[in-house]
Amino acid sequence: MGHPMDAELEKKEMDFRSLSNGQAANVPYIHKVGVPPKQNLLKEFKVTMKETFFADDPLRSFKDQPRSRKLVLGIQAIFPILEWGRSYNLTKFRGDLISGLTIASLCIPQDIGYSKLANLAPQYGLYSSFVPPLIYAAMGSSRDIAIGPVAVVSLLLGTLLQNEIDPIKHAAEYRQLAFTATFFAGICQATLGVFRLGFLIDFLSHAAIVGFMGGAAITIALQQLKGFLGIKNFTKKTDIISVLHSIFDSAHHGWNWQTIVIGATFLTFLLLAKYIGKMNKKLFWVPAIAPLISVVLSTFFVFITHAEKHGVEIVRHIEKGINPSSVDQIYFSGEYLVKGFRIGIVAGMIALTEAVAIGRTFATMKDYQLDGNKEMVALGAMNVVGSMTSCYVATGSFSRSAVNYMAGCQTAASNIVMSCVVFLTLQFITPLFKYTPNAILAAIIISAVINLIDFEAAILIFKIDKFDFVACMGAFFGVVFVSVEIGLLIAVSISFAKILLQVTRPRTAILGKIPRTTVYRNIRQYPEANRVPGVLIVRIDSAVYFSNSNYVKERILRWLTDEEKQGNDDYQTKIQFLVVEMSPVTDVDTSGIHAFEELYRSLQKKGVQLVLANPGPVVIDKLHASGFANLIGEDKIFLTVADAIAFCSPKLVEEA
Amino acid sequence: MGHPMDAELEKKEMDFRSLSNGQAANVPYIHKVGVPPKQNLLKEFKVTMKETFFADDPLRSFKDQPRSRKLVLGIQAIFPILEWGRSYNLTKFRGDLISGLTIASLCIPQDIGYSKLANLAPQYGLYSSFVPPLIYAAMGSSRDIAIGPVAVVSLLLGTLLQNEIDPIKHAAEYRQLAFTATFFAGICQATLGVFRLGFLIDFLSHAAIVGFMGGAAITIALQQLKGFLGIKNFTKKTDIISVLHSIFDSAHHGWNWQTIVIGATFLTFLLLAKYIGKMNKKLFWVPAIAPLISVVLSTFFVFITHAEKHGVEIVRHIEKGINPSSVDQIYFSGEYLVKGFRIGIVAGMIALTEAVAIGRTFATMKDYQLDGNKEMVALGAMNVVGSMTSCYVATGSFSRSAVNYMAGCQTAASNIVMSCVVFLTLQFITPLFKYTPNAILAAIIISAVINLIDFEAAILIFKIDKFDFVACMGAFFGVVFVSVEIGLLIAVSISFAKILLQVTRPRTAILGKIPRTTVYRNIRQYPEANRVPGVLIVRIDSAVYFSNSNYVKERILRWLTDEEKQGNDDYQTKIQFLVVEMSPVTDVDTSGIHAFEELYRSLQKKGVQLVLANPGPVVIDKLHASGFANLIGEDKIFLTVADAIAFCSPKLVEEA
Repeated sequence: MGHPMDAELEKKEMDFRSLSNGQAANVPYIHKVGVPPKQNLLKEFKVTMKETFFADDPLRSFKDQPRSRKLVLGIQAIFPILEWGRSYNLTKFRGDLISGLTIASLCIPQDIGYSKLANLAPQYGLYSSFVPPLIYAAMGSSRDIAIGPVAVVSLLLGTLLQNEIDPIKHAAEYRQLAFTATFFAGICQATLGVFRLGFLIDFLSHAAIVGFMGGAAITIALQQLKGFLGIKNFTKKTDIISVLHSIFDSAHHGWNWQTIVIGATFLTFLLLAKYIGKMNKKLFWVPAIAPLISVVLSTFFVFITHAEKHGVEIVRHIEKGINPSSVDQIYFSGEYLVKGFRIGIVAGMIALTEAVAIGRTFATMKDYQLDGNKEMVALGAMNVVGSMTSCYVATGSFSRSAVNYMAGCQTAASNIVMSCVVFLTLQFITPLFKYTPNAILAAIIISAVINLIDFEAAILIFKIDKFDFVACMGAFFGVVFVSVEIGLLIAVSISFAKILLQVTRPRTAILGKIPRTTVYRNIRQYPEANRVPGVLIVRIDSAVYFSNSNYVKERILRWLTDEEKQGNDDYQTKIQFLVVEMSPVTDVDTSGIHAFEELYRSLQKKGVQLVLANPGPVVIDKLHASGFANLIGEDKIFLTVADAIAFCSPKLVEEA
Repeated sequence: MGHPMDAELEKKEMDFRSLSNGQAANVPYIHKVGVPPKQNLLKEFKVTMKETFFADDPLRSFKDQPRSRKLVLGIQAIFPILEWGRSYNLTKFRGDLISGLTIASLCIPQDIGYSKLANLAPQYGLYSSFVPPLIYAAMGSSRDIAIGPVAVVSLLLGTLLQNEIDPIKHAAEYRQLAFTATFFAGICQATLGVFRLGFLIDFLSHAAIVGFMGGAAITIALQQLKGFLGIKNFTKKTDIISVLHSIFDSAHHGWNWQTIVIGATFLTFLLLAKYIGKMNKKLFWVPAIAPLISVVLSTFFVFITHAEKHGVEIVRHIEKGINPSSVDQIYFSGEYLVKGFRIGIVAGMIALTEAVAIGRTFATMKDYQLDGNKEMVALGAMNVVGSMTSCYVATGSFSRSAVNYMAGCQTAASNIVMSCVVFLTLQFITPLFKYTPNAILAAIIISAVINLIDFEAAILIFKIDKFDFVACMGAFFGVVFVSVEIGLLIAVSISFAKILLQVTRPRTAILGKIPRTTVYRNIRQYPEANRVPGVLIVRIDSAVYFSNSNYVKERILRWLTDEEKQGNDDYQTKIQFLVVEMSPVTDVDTSGIHAFEELYRSLQKKGVQLVLANPGPVVIDKLHASGFANLIGEDKIFLTVADAIAFCSPKLVEEA
């Protein structure tokens, strides 16, 4: 391994010295700006398409394979279980069994509670934890994600659906619309995956999600006060003001102290369990099984004391048996088709964002690759099948996936284990939930969602990026004070506004020479950098496109005006050269070229020469294609700012 | 002027030498990456706001002035006529008079024709050339723009309005809706200006405008075939297929040969005049007065031959007298308020785009500054007043502004001259237009709009930027084959798609050392650049935001995988360092920091060290704020790639 590298290094070393000598002798070697070999149009288009839609090169393993092998690979790509299943062994199964049982014990009480958030009967939550995990286990490629209904999506779906149909008066239609929305959520997810448009979910920024999740958590927790305090007349709105009104209006005769005692006791227990799990990572199973223990204990307690006769609300009835078919219940025509479609897209996108974020997080932790688009197809297929088997939108749950990971899951088989447990529950145990008090479910949900409020992330966001913090707070307050939809809308709008701001108002900087180097840097960052008299060096920090070309031109001219004004004050030499450092300018379009032409003309009128430094491959290509390189003169385009200055300086001296 | 600069240069020279010596002695002087002085939050916010909304620093002249002076300056800012009016003189007036008369002779026949495009009676075109130019002359700051109705906006308005109300059956309501739309177009324009949101119009890319204008020109020309061929039953749709259907269906008995003869004769005359004007710039007045001559000659011809009795359609009636008030005709309530508002916004934005583009073009040619936002306020005010005086949306006309410029206009006073001529026309001459054949108006419009088809620009766009060309053609075919609105929608969508693509899929490049320099550049652009063995140098060519952070991270890891694979094939040394050149990375947000953290962790697992080169002021600030600089180690952040390589290389040797 030794010598080829040494030789290479030696060569570099020589280059180094020859440069130094050259400079010392004041005959700097000026390297020409490279024009990349002309690409043909089709190839260029192909490369762009590839980077946009196949950035992760998913077909890499298919290359140079016989057709039969390609077919096998293709089927394996759709059903990764065929790949990892072949090397599955008992050790892996042990991990998956333990983690599957753990997440099952966590998901059963959560499911019953979350289905309430979606205004559906409790069994629908359990249904959604039976079929979708099986489909995902076959098609998904994340090893750690735990599939099922989640709090935020349940709330969002419930809010959007009850805007259209009353969930109590028209329960059947409401359910049908829920299945329709789930169907289209799945279709939307799968479509994004198939057409490799997965990057669209990146447009919801991390900061906006932190704010949205925090707001949703508070909204969900507030909704639980209904069950927690035993209030009968509760508002249907989700904003904090309506909810607090409901609570205080019913304070005198609407609260039920027995309910509060049960709820508060078990909430304390759950939070304590959470705290123990947090303090000692090995005891992660304590908070994981605490909810199930609470349910068993409280149900037993209500059963023997008959607390339900004292106003403690109980679950009463959960349908026994596994998922019935719901194929014929989906609206494929009429006005509800459109409404279901719209709601499905919103819920599907949020579900996707959550699942992909979870998948990526754990993939990074265990260092395996995750194809976001393939994940989307799996999630979409799972929801489409789910919508036909009485499930509502399922996705990856943050809390359960973390438990899954800590319990040592090895593959997606832990989802199969969980699914089996849910199957057994549905088949045999549901009648036992009859006496489970609603207050316990409320306590379980509250203790689950407080994890979604991520103070540390919010503080970090504030420290790092103020604009992100505005997005975060906007989403948070939008959800808490208005509604989930408005919060989401604010989050998306601010995210987009940020992108637009970025492309409309790129930064520019004045460069100066850092003493004892030939390096030119932003004088704001390096106050010790010296300006070169008679020369203004401006760096444009972005591609120059139609959205910013005018601004860039005018900003450069303003730098010049400012500089000349200051120059006059300081009795300095007049600016004779404007060097534009183009390193960060990755691309220009026709508007950009026009802006440069206008800049050139304006400078000519002022008697200032335009000099360009280090245009990139695409830019130099376009400068030539448009004839701009000829206009300003090929000899005014340099490889580095230092070369450009070396060109300007002698001329300045002559004139001075 | 001599010595301060010389001293400065001498200092630089010394720096130069000390650097060279340092390198030759192999003890390179490594400069630290600067951390800019911490700014306070408020100041930072203020700077961002200023760059976004007051990028042109419009309040510069107000600084440090007494209050009374500020008031005067403020009034002058709103009414620039008070400023330039004080230095107005006879020489300037001579230029303005000649150019004003020239554009008046051009605008009168055009106005009558354009009002037909908007489905309004001929006098409304003339009204719109009387009041708005006066308001603009007082408030506008462009010296060359010629105000009045224009073809594209007339067509757009006509199409959008007739979707709502039938212009023949309900002429009065149609007119009212037109005034309502004009009112809101003005409000929209003025609002954008007042809130300094003028940059929003930059989101319609140059390429999209070229395509849209070309398509609109063809659509308008096709519409003129009705008058040109004397067809009675003509489609109301504007797409090329419907129009050609109409034409060929009526070929047998619907065409009128007398009309065709008149039209064809004068169209030939007009095109000839245009050609003469193009060949000899001094004869610019030939095409400028040709339309009026055609009108006079053809009217006289029809009058003496009574061709109208042989089926030649004539104007018949133009209301005499100046603009009546239309304040009470604007819909301020009901469903038409919303419709008028929507149409007004679309028409207003297109009108604005055209006017600002014209203003900027001529301002660059005469080298004066134009405040886009102030222009918008002027244009908005002019349309609001216009809507109350029976005008429809007016804006700057490309063709008339060019004539105005060539005729030697000096100030906006040429618009006043034109306005006076239109006033006299309205008061005294309109009855004379009775016998003007419609075919002449059609010929005048055809000869005017063919200028909007800019083949050269389209070819240049094709040469420079293929994606821009797609946008251009999309808008063009959308307008020609579907409708103006769809074309516009396509233009805007493609423009946005381009921005989103830009921020989602930034470029990355592998750098190599250019022989005989210490400069590291893209190896695709400089094939002679050498890679440094054991080190992978990647440059990220964009700010790292939530929209691209995942892509950037994964792309870098893919470069590494590719490189390692290739490295293995070549028996080269294993990659031990990943240098990320951050010069073009102007900003990171929280998602970006997360991506870097994930990158760092993935690299650690692979046994590759992460090294950063030249992070900018904002980035280094955030790297510190987030603790990432500590995570990777302060000593892994360098000023230049060369410094970073100097750090990596010795370690590589040791390990080898």
